[in-house]
Amino acid sequence: MDDRFARGSELLDQIHAGGGAKLVASLSDVAPDLGRYIVEFGFGDVYQRPGLSLRDRQLATVAALAALGTAQAQLAAHIEGALAVGLTREEVVEVIIQMALYGGFPAAMNAVDAARAAFAAADATASAAS
Amino acid sequence: MDDRFARGSELLDQIHAGGGAKLVASLSDVAPDLGRYIVEFGFGDVYQRPGLSLRDRQLATVAALAALGTAQAQLAAHIEGALAVGLTREEVVEVIIQMALYGGFPAAMNAVDAARAAFAAADATASAAS
Amino acid sequence: MDDRFARGSELLDQIHAGGGAKLVASLSDVAPDLGRYIVEFGFGDVYQRPGLSLRDRQLATVAALAALGTAQAQLAAHIEGALAVGLTREEVVEVIIQMALYGGFPAAMNAVDAARAAFAAADATASAAS
Amino acid sequence: MDDRFARGSELLDQIHAGGGAKLVASLSDVAPDLGRYIVEFGFGDVYQRPGLSLRDRQLATVAALAALGTAQAQLAAHIEGALAVGLTREEVVEVIIQMALYGGFPAAMNAVDAARAAFAAADATASAAS
Amino acid sequence: MDDRFARGSELLDQIHAGGGAKLVASLSDVAPDLGRYIVEFGFGDVYQRPGLSLRDRQLATVAALAALGTAQAQLAAHIEGALAVGLTREEVVEVIIQMALYGGFPAAMNAVDAARAAFAAADATASAAS
Amino acid sequence: MDDRFARGSELLDQIHAGGGAKLVASLSDVAPDLGRYIVEFGFGDVYQRPGLSLRDRQLATVAALAALGTAQAQLAAHIEGALAVGLTREEVVEVIIQMALYGGFPAAMNAVDAARAAFAAADATASAAS
Repeated sequence: MDDRFARGSELLDQIHAGGGAKLVASLSDVAPDLGRYIVEFGFGDVYQRPGLSLRDRQLATVAALAALGTAQAQLAAHIEGALAVGLTREEVVEVIIQMALYGGFPAAMNAVDAARAAFAAADATASAAS
Repeated sequence: MDDRFARGSELLDQIHAGGGAKLVASLSDVAPDLGRYIVEFGFGDVYQRPGLSLRDRQLATVAALAALGTAQAQLAAHIEGALAVGLTREEVVEVIIQMALYGGFPAAMNAVDAARAAFAAADATASAAS
Repeated sequence: MDDRFARGSELLDQIHAGGGAKLVASLSDVAPDLGRYIVEFGFGDVYQRPGLSLRDRQLATVAALAALGTAQAQLAAHIEGALAVGLTREEVVEVIIQMALYGGFPAAMNAVDAARAAFAAADATASAAS
Repeated sequence: MDDRFARGSELLDQIHAGGGAKLVASLSDVAPDLGRYIVEFGFGDVYQRPGLSLRDRQLATVAALAALGTAQAQLAAHIEGALAVGLTREEVVEVIIQMALYGGFPAAMNAVDAARAAFAAADATASAAS
Repeated sequence: MDDRFARGSELLDQIHAGGGAKLVASLSDVAPDLGRYIVEFGFGDVYQRPGLSLRDRQLATVAALAALGTAQAQLAAHIEGALAVGLTREEVVEVIIQMALYGGFPAAMNAVDAARAAFAAADATASAAS
Repeated sequence: MDDRFARGSELLDQIHAGGGAKLVASLSDVAPDLGRYIVEFGFGDVYQRPGLSLRDRQLATVAALAALGTAQAQLAAHIEGALAVGLTREEVVEVIIQMALYGGFPAAMNAVDAARAAFAAADATASAAS
């Protein structure tokens, strides 16, 4: 296991508790190297870069996935991650509303569904921890 | 001229010096009401909302337009606006690099072209002002 | 409640019976203002405009959502609305078939699924009313 | 030359004066069969279908291409065709403004550029004919 | 039944056992002519062309649908078809991993889900046949 | 310079003569690390993988970029690369024609423009070499 994978896993687990192992596992039957690249390149290279805070990086990702409208599950996961690194629910909702301007209203409506699921998951995690 | 248009124009001019008037003028021959809606709804309603800073809003817009890859001119304009409300050039570049993960590498490469144009325009403005 | 919201609600209810209240309610837990904007801006401003009939507006929306392929639920809802303002089922199907030329065949196939759901919902409504 | 090509050419020339021959010519060096398929399948099969008027078909196409935002030249060509089969300039502009709701504002702004080019081309044609 | 439909059906059944009849049936309630066009134009004209092998055609389709991210069911069907005309599972997975570069990582992750479903369906078919 | 970059550069230069250095140079003023990632991750990791030939990888990329319709310059560059690793012009054209089925006809028409430019560039290179 090289450095990039190790530091990517660590960061991924900071954003999503246990997320690194789970992501790699979810792809391991069909495309294990895709999971490895997400960890190594996505979180070991790109998300590690010093010029932008982790909170800002999640904000950017939520904006992009909401506007694109083709990655509902990943959007929900990144909203959970966004909350974990310091974005408030209000900020997430504001980003989604703003995306109506750039991706259209249906994209924003679908992103609200992803936010609802992510907020419920965050509630369940918080409740399990208390 | 109603309140929403007035406050939208003011905000648009804060982001892009003189931008509100220019935008409305650019659409006035064919679709003047589209320009009015951008000012009223986009900048008079959405960008005015208190839950997210203007700097974060521009970051979200740059991320979305870079990932979508269908609005090169608007991306360049929003990068100029992003610099005007406090994002650094380094932060803009980081957002663009990160979008390779969500919109693909060609989208990120094209966004670099938009950034280059926006940085040059910002240099020209700064140089004219000095 | 301002004028734009009131006239938007009225129009939305004309297109979808009870649709205005339902749409606002569906977004009210997470992003109530998104629902408000759809009513105020979408149906209070844009759909109100005199230069294009409501029937033509729904035709345009069905075409766009079918070609985009990212808003299956909204496409079904707009097909129901299209029938309510005077498009025939045959015309809806023709628009969808034509979209194979511009959004590709898979987009058209998925739009057929949305049409099937919308036609069934319209049948159920008609049957409940008789 | 089979029937489908012949009737497709005729229809294409009705929408765009001389358009059939020009389209086929423009693709003839690299992909002549693509031009043939557009004529045969697009205009010989799909646009020929009885269930939707030619005017409505052009309206649907303008809506879709404006929302997609990836076919600026084809959008301009279809706007010219839309005028030729009976849509007014006002109706075209209304469709474009409405697409801000489904494809986002930058898509609508770029469609305004296509409309401006198409309106100018229609003016030039009218002026040459008078 | 004309020649194009007959030869399209035959090819479609070679790629997907019984697929031609099933596809036409699945669209026959709402848009039967869309099914006919897919057979006639898609498989009777385009896929018949001599300049590219059937295996390469399926590879191209898998790549495109994975990158687009808007046609999950059709992607799974074409992956099954790809295996039927000679692509290996490893080659399919390689195409999907590569699409992370052009459509982004979420698109590739969703394509892995389609591949998993297609591989399971191919296993079920093989097991039923033995 | 690590191994991944070195082997990525070498492969990139095999596909596009001198392409690695040119690509890195073209991004070096604004986003040098984006160029580095394309070489390291794109060509040092992904394109190196043994399960799919280089010729098939270029075929997949041409298909994806043609269908997406947002990366005209990169499509032209990859068509040149496709010819360099063994795809024929006829095969490239076949892929493009087929993409009309999945990305729509305007996407295919625009891809023809990219192919024309790439074929001319390949002719110029061949003529300079003779």
